[in-house]
Amino acid sequence: MPGEPVTVSRRDLLSLIGTISGSAAMYHAMTALGFAADSGYRGPIKLEGDAKGASVLILGAGLAGMTAALELRKAGYSVQILEFNSRPGGRNWTLRGGDSFTELGGAKQTCEFDDGLYLNPGPWRIPYHHRALLDYCKRLNVALEPFLQLNHNALLHASSAFGGTPQRIRDIKTDFQGQVSELLAKVTQQGKLDEAVTKEDREILLQALRAWGALDRDYAYKANLISADMRGFAKNPGGGLTAVPVPGEPIALSEILHSQLWRYLQNFARYQFQTTMFQPVGGMDMIGKAFAKEVGDLIRYDAKVTAIAQDDRGVTVTWTDLKSPATPQQAKADWCVCTIPLSILSQLAINVGARMKAAIDAVPYSASVKIGLQFKRRFWEEDEAIYGGISYTDLPIRQIAYPNSGFNRAGKGVLLGAYLFDGANAFEFTAMPPAERVARAVEFGARLHPQYASEFENGIAVAWHRMPFTLGCAGDWSDATRAKHYNDLCQIDGRIVLAGEHASYIPAWQEGAILSSLDAIGRLHERVVKT
Amino acid sequence: MPGEPVTVSRRDLLSLIGTISGSAAMYHAMTALGFAADSGYRGPIKLEGDAKGASVLILGAGLAGMTAALELRKAGYSVQILEFNSRPGGRNWTLRGGDSFTELGGAKQTCEFDDGLYLNPGPWRIPYHHRALLDYCKRLNVALEPFLQLNHNALLHASSAFGGTPQRIRDIKTDFQGQVSELLAKVTQQGKLDEAVTKEDREILLQALRAWGALDRDYAYKANLISADMRGFAKNPGGGLTAVPVPGEPIALSEILHSQLWRYLQNFARYQFQTTMFQPVGGMDMIGKAFAKEVGDLIRYDAKVTAIAQDDRGVTVTWTDLKSPATPQQAKADWCVCTIPLSILSQLAINVGARMKAAIDAVPYSASVKIGLQFKRRFWEEDEAIYGGISYTDLPIRQIAYPNSGFNRAGKGVLLGAYLFDGANAFEFTAMPPAERVARAVEFGARLHPQYASEFENGIAVAWHRMPFTLGCAGDWSDATRAKHYNDLCQIDGRIVLAGEHASYIPAWQEGAILSSLDAIGRLHERVVKT
Repeated sequence: MPGEPVTVSRRDLLSLIGTISGSAAMYHAMTALGFAADSGYRGPIKLEGDAKGASVLILGAGLAGMTAALELRKAGYSVQILEFNSRPGGRNWTLRGGDSFTELGGAKQTCEFDDGLYLNPGPWRIPYHHRALLDYCKRLNVALEPFLQLNHNALLHASSAFGGTPQRIRDIKTDFQGQVSELLAKVTQQGKLDEAVTKEDREILLQALRAWGALDRDYAYKANLISADMRGFAKNPGGGLTAVPVPGEPIALSEILHSQLWRYLQNFARYQFQTTMFQPVGGMDMIGKAFAKEVGDLIRYDAKVTAIAQDDRGVTVTWTDLKSPATPQQAKADWCVCTIPLSILSQLAINVGARMKAAIDAVPYSASVKIGLQFKRRFWEEDEAIYGGISYTDLPIRQIAYPNSGFNRAGKGVLLGAYLFDGANAFEFTAMPPAERVARAVEFGARLHPQYASEFENGIAVAWHRMPFTLGCAGDWSDATRAKHYNDLCQIDGRIVLAGEHASYIPAWQEGAILSSLDAIGRLHERVVKT
Repeated sequence: MPGEPVTVSRRDLLSLIGTISGSAAMYHAMTALGFAADSGYRGPIKLEGDAKGASVLILGAGLAGMTAALELRKAGYSVQILEFNSRPGGRNWTLRGGDSFTELGGAKQTCEFDDGLYLNPGPWRIPYHHRALLDYCKRLNVALEPFLQLNHNALLHASSAFGGTPQRIRDIKTDFQGQVSELLAKVTQQGKLDEAVTKEDREILLQALRAWGALDRDYAYKANLISADMRGFAKNPGGGLTAVPVPGEPIALSEILHSQLWRYLQNFARYQFQTTMFQPVGGMDMIGKAFAKEVGDLIRYDAKVTAIAQDDRGVTVTWTDLKSPATPQQAKADWCVCTIPLSILSQLAINVGARMKAAIDAVPYSASVKIGLQFKRRFWEEDEAIYGGISYTDLPIRQIAYPNSGFNRAGKGVLLGAYLFDGANAFEFTAMPPAERVARAVEFGARLHPQYASEFENGIAVAWHRMPFTLGCAGDWSDATRAKHYNDLCQIDGRIVLAGEHASYIPAWQEGAILSSLDAIGRLHERVVKT
């Protein structure tokens, strides 16, 4: 009755707030009520209720497909998977010595890396907030090690600045932050912030800027031991009688601004790239292999899907065995979870409704090229003290990424010598023969690391638009396309539901594939249980 | 003759510049000439010339002593080492289950950690620019893995701010940077920077602040997908039909300023703590053990030095075997490299000149306490997605550091539950019995991690002022003391030269110990060769 206290669970309360005020209000309330709200993933999916012996045909043995297979079989479904490649994982893929593949156009590459060296041509890093992927890694015993995104001693390079000489990230980062702090401290002292900041806050702000910006007692940023404590020294402190440190000379703000090198600084703080990131020990495909250890018995490899048909009673998929393609084959099931990339699915006969078909056709796939280069020695560590992380350049190669394992050892090493995405250069490199891609990566990379000339041994180049199983890197949603088509793409259409990174708000990430799959099979199961 | 070009080597030119203009000018010139100038270490020391069968007695088998032993034996010296402990390494030390030690006052602790878990009570991280230490790790086959200093998802905690609720580092860091950028962008637009920055630079500065500070098109920092891209979300983007992300609400600048949490932000950028840092796989003492594999045959353990005497012909060191202390013993050699901490050396009889003796007596040793805590599960990873790195608090424990290995695995884990240094709290904890130190660390830590209450199993506490072999953590030089005594400390006095972190400009770091040792033996060898 009115006035009497009502006991309501936090979950019910949140649901009520969500209904009344929308999701933003709900999630702010969640935080206030002490929920760790930032991931939608709440631990292993629970598919409760009777699957009634239903069968599910899964198309694609990437992470989305194998997640669905693992969970649906556990829930009592009869499951089979058709996979185009001869291996599990899809874009979850690692190239090692002896591996070979053929791209569209017929060029075949065989990887010549030495034992223990590898390239992850697809996904290569795992953010700490990709809770679903991390949970599967835990459940499937995939060992992880840190992936280093930000290495303060790696390089920033602009062709037309500093005479083409690469700069250390730590110098650009510290000098930009220091001089921005100095400017703001000056106007604060000059009373120019008096409208925006209270007097009390101004005093603390000055202290904070001094600490954060490495300013001296007069709020100046200059060559001294204070700035050196952040940016490093011209000569490091040492031992014995040769020990006195010498600070280096900061780079003027104007030079940094005109160099455009400040553009790269945000990469080091982005949520997607923040510490702590991970990579599986030994290569990203350790995850795909771990999944396949669970569901490999369900996978039919070398199976190229050519048509997907459904009626009231079930789904029929036509496919050919790539090893004996003469005779088309058919697979049937009550339901279908299709994880085929939209770039390929849009070319197949599939009888879904007009809205889902329009969604399938609406999403272009982004271009991406990754090039792995093997060198005789880890000169980036030995000569330049660059251990892991990424150097950035405005050259077409965009990035040089250093290996995040095997640190400080003698012997050979493999760099990611180019990571092109979006834009004209990615298409330009895709159009080149593989050997030319590698040669260009070596040529450009030598402008950051002259050692390339004498140390290079061999390379391999994956241009995603030429990979027959994806025809692109990942679904490239615009805001407008998403607003128009995303929900249609994700609906269950009759007996078919789509899953994969393309059916998520985290395109190109493995987490998107898994969360999309869990969401799809959760709804599918609900439908099965109810019918 | 005048006007004619002169060929001069770069090295000679540098030497000339150094002589004329001093070291700062020389090092700036070095950089200009393309030298990678920032470390004084130039690869393995070359002790050329005849050692003439001379003998060297080394006091202490820490990294300084073992470096000297390794290099001097290689150069032809007859070497022996006296070491107080029953193990090599000195402060290079790792505690594992079953290890025990007794501190001053008689309290004995035995480590109860499970297999595979450990605490590094002394040094625990290696900067990428500690070139000498890294070179020895390489030569001695010590495997390294990343040490994570900055974890964006770890915590910042101020007892009196935010109702005592810890904040995520990524929130404080992003919100501070964003609002500082917003303030500077505003005054830039208002024309208040017109004196300090050219018109052209102002335009670029605005672009840079927008990118760096995650500002919107109007240069405002607020809750939206732009700031969320740096600070994270109230609800992360997901997959399928439950995928729409919800940005979180930034923390107001005034709140951040008053919380004082900005004080911790500089720790993440300091040269000493920048990426990429390392730790040896399996514990810091892997380095000491690797050295001992080379020079262990030269070490006499359990040897407590009581007096150091020298005359024109050699050095005589009196010592007692701690396992049969009744009979003092003597060791003699032509030369002595003494790495005994000054805290202990200042209490021994040693006949060096007045200036070196004054230097030995001038340096206090810093206080430090490290406490390791074992928990039933890695709740910081499982519940809070904190993988490695450090949380900071204004409570006496100062830091909670999470293990940088064994990520994402089920099972137990050991935290560094307190790292106290300098200041009253370090002395206060040193004065407590070990069990009370551990209990207090658990009590304080629970304010950041309530899971402590149910998950804690056992702990161990090393208070460095009570460790009989150092009586403190490291040499605590002031600028004034260094100006007065440092050079006297490092001179060769007759037949004795000192080495160790205390004889360096990098106190408390292993690199300081090694560089000091290399500098000392280089000069010693020069003297031997010349005489």
